[in-house]
Amino acid sequence: MKKLINNVDDVIADALKGIELSDDNVRVDHEHRVIYRAEKTRQGKVAVISGGGSGHEPLHGGFVGVGMLDAACAGQMFTSPTPDQMLAATSEADGGAGVLHIVKNYTGDVMNFEMAGEMAADSGVRVETVVVADDVAVQDSLYTAGRRGVGLTVLLEKIVGAAAEEGRDMDGVLEIAHRVNAGGRSMGMALTSCTVPAAGKPTFDLPDDEMEIGVGIHGEPGRHREPLSSARDIAKQLVDPILHDLDFTGAPCIVMLNGMGGTPLIELYLMYGEVVRLLDDAGITIARNLVGNYITSLDMAGCSVTILKADDEILALWDAPVKTAGLRWGV
Amino acid sequence: MKKLINNVDDVIADALKGIELSDDNVRVDHEHRVIYRAEKTRQGKVAVISGGGSGHEPLHGGFVGVGMLDAACAGQMFTSPTPDQMLAATSEADGGAGVLHIVKNYTGDVMNFEMAGEMAADSGVRVETVVVADDVAVQDSLYTAGRRGVGLTVLLEKIVGAAAEEGRDMDGVLEIAHRVNAGGRSMGMALTSCTVPAAGKPTFDLPDDEMEIGVGIHGEPGRHREPLSSARDIAKQLVDPILHDLDFTGAPCIVMLNGMGGTPLIELYLMYGEVVRLLDDAGITIARNLVGNYITSLDMAGCSVTILKADDEILALWDAPVKTAGLRWGV
Repeated sequence: MKKLINNVDDVIADALKGIELSDDNVRVDHEHRVIYRAEKTRQGKVAVISGGGSGHEPLHGGFVGVGMLDAACAGQMFTSPTPDQMLAATSEADGGAGVLHIVKNYTGDVMNFEMAGEMAADSGVRVETVVVADDVAVQDSLYTAGRRGVGLTVLLEKIVGAAAEEGRDMDGVLEIAHRVNAGGRSMGMALTSCTVPAAGKPTFDLPDDEMEIGVGIHGEPGRHREPLSSARDIAKQLVDPILHDLDFTGAPCIVMLNGMGGTPLIELYLMYGEVVRLLDDAGITIARNLVGNYITSLDMAGCSVTILKADDEILALWDAPVKTAGLRWGV
Repeated sequence: MKKLINNVDDVIADALKGIELSDDNVRVDHEHRVIYRAEKTRQGKVAVISGGGSGHEPLHGGFVGVGMLDAACAGQMFTSPTPDQMLAATSEADGGAGVLHIVKNYTGDVMNFEMAGEMAADSGVRVETVVVADDVAVQDSLYTAGRRGVGLTVLLEKIVGAAAEEGRDMDGVLEIAHRVNAGGRSMGMALTSCTVPAAGKPTFDLPDDEMEIGVGIHGEPGRHREPLSSARDIAKQLVDPILHDLDFTGAPCIVMLNGMGGTPLIELYLMYGEVVRLLDDAGITIARNLVGNYITSLDMAGCSVTILKADDEILALWDAPVKTAGLRWGV
């Protein structure tokens, strides 16, 4: 295993130190492993928090900042944060207008956020939850009942974060969250496995001439394996199932071509060109896009496609200023 | 070889299509493989252009946009662009106030930019050149007489681009370019080789338990190989030679922790924390930083450190708005 680490037990603690040192706009509670904005949530603003297993950087910690998240809990590698982390984040981030939990649909994450939400509610904080489940690859999976939560989480955190930032109340923020959640779908693929530091070896075996179509962000099995093929064919195998699942025509769409962590940018741009060709052929309007590493799987080589059916209001929230380590514009 | 490509001959052309489709702020001359800002250089503005072999994305094409480059020439993989590409870029980008060529110190790049500069001068365009040679690892190298040009290029393109954007004349832009060039040093390392698509196999062999200290961005040999060690030790092996080469105390510094393309962000943040610890111990003031993939080597795993001795004027230029695919803030 070749990694830039000190030892496997300290990877997350050491990375959190680096994140804190690199970004004046955040502060880190190292005891609870929660990344907060440097400034407290302003009174009357809905707080938007998320979290999940580490290893998907910049998700979620890199999305804490003005216009996006108020706090993010960092779990162990590919493992849900604990309820006490989430409770600490919820209590600390609350600005009196309630706290929205953005949860990727994995059994541990859903259960722990639910427990934390109940505890916070007992102390008088209004907590609402949106569970993201956008991966069209498989119905149930290794750690999931129903669909897995993947790339749409990035778009949802941006858009919902903007809605909270502009002062919408919890009902207004929730309405946007549900609309984004309903309109987004994703699918991913892997050229290689990732290697979790504590395991010290690849999560799964993938022969040198094969790829996994529909892979999960923790290396969960996808739909099938097959011989490595062209970018054009791979794009089709990711886009077709998404378009089969939801009609994206007649609305401006936001498209993300996401890298899994070990794939260089030149390949992601190349893949984006192939995806655009297919969406053009299908009569889909791309209003905005993101190309890069936003929700990763450690050092996995591969990519995923996310498409969100947007509208003018969602586009305006997308365009609103955001200042985080992972996404920044307008400020 | 596992890559998201169609075939090895089309990688760069296909990637340029994707870049053009993803960014409304640029346009691509596909014949010459030059990326331009969507809008022509305004009359009286010094044009800043660069270019080099492909495979280092986002450098250089991803740095074309307001506040940074006016144009970037994309060569073949790890190979200098040709003089006719550079001449086309120089002629097209000229706004009547001259064109600055930012050239990384590799023999082919230097020679071709020089030839293009002479041809452009013959047609009446004032062309000036700054050659970046910041890599302290080795004196001469596989493709270089003198030191190699590496990470400082990113910082120089940003700072010099800002100086041109605010309307400085060529002498003023050149003065800043020389000051940045004099004050910056870099050093990199690799955990793995990269694989050039046309070669189809790793550029160099690196055993599973070894790393290359001082590697070049094309996989050129560094100072030595040794057994894989901790992030803390690696940081020391990168920072010490830089500090040995130049005194960075007594000035606000800009520090970049750059990924080589195949290393995930969580490791880069961890490494940044280790670098900061060493710079603190050495009494160096970090005023700004960048952590991420900015000058890559295809799918190489590894990282590099760049330190620039800045001043208030350079910091103000660093902070000025920039709107490119690879760097964006303030707009």
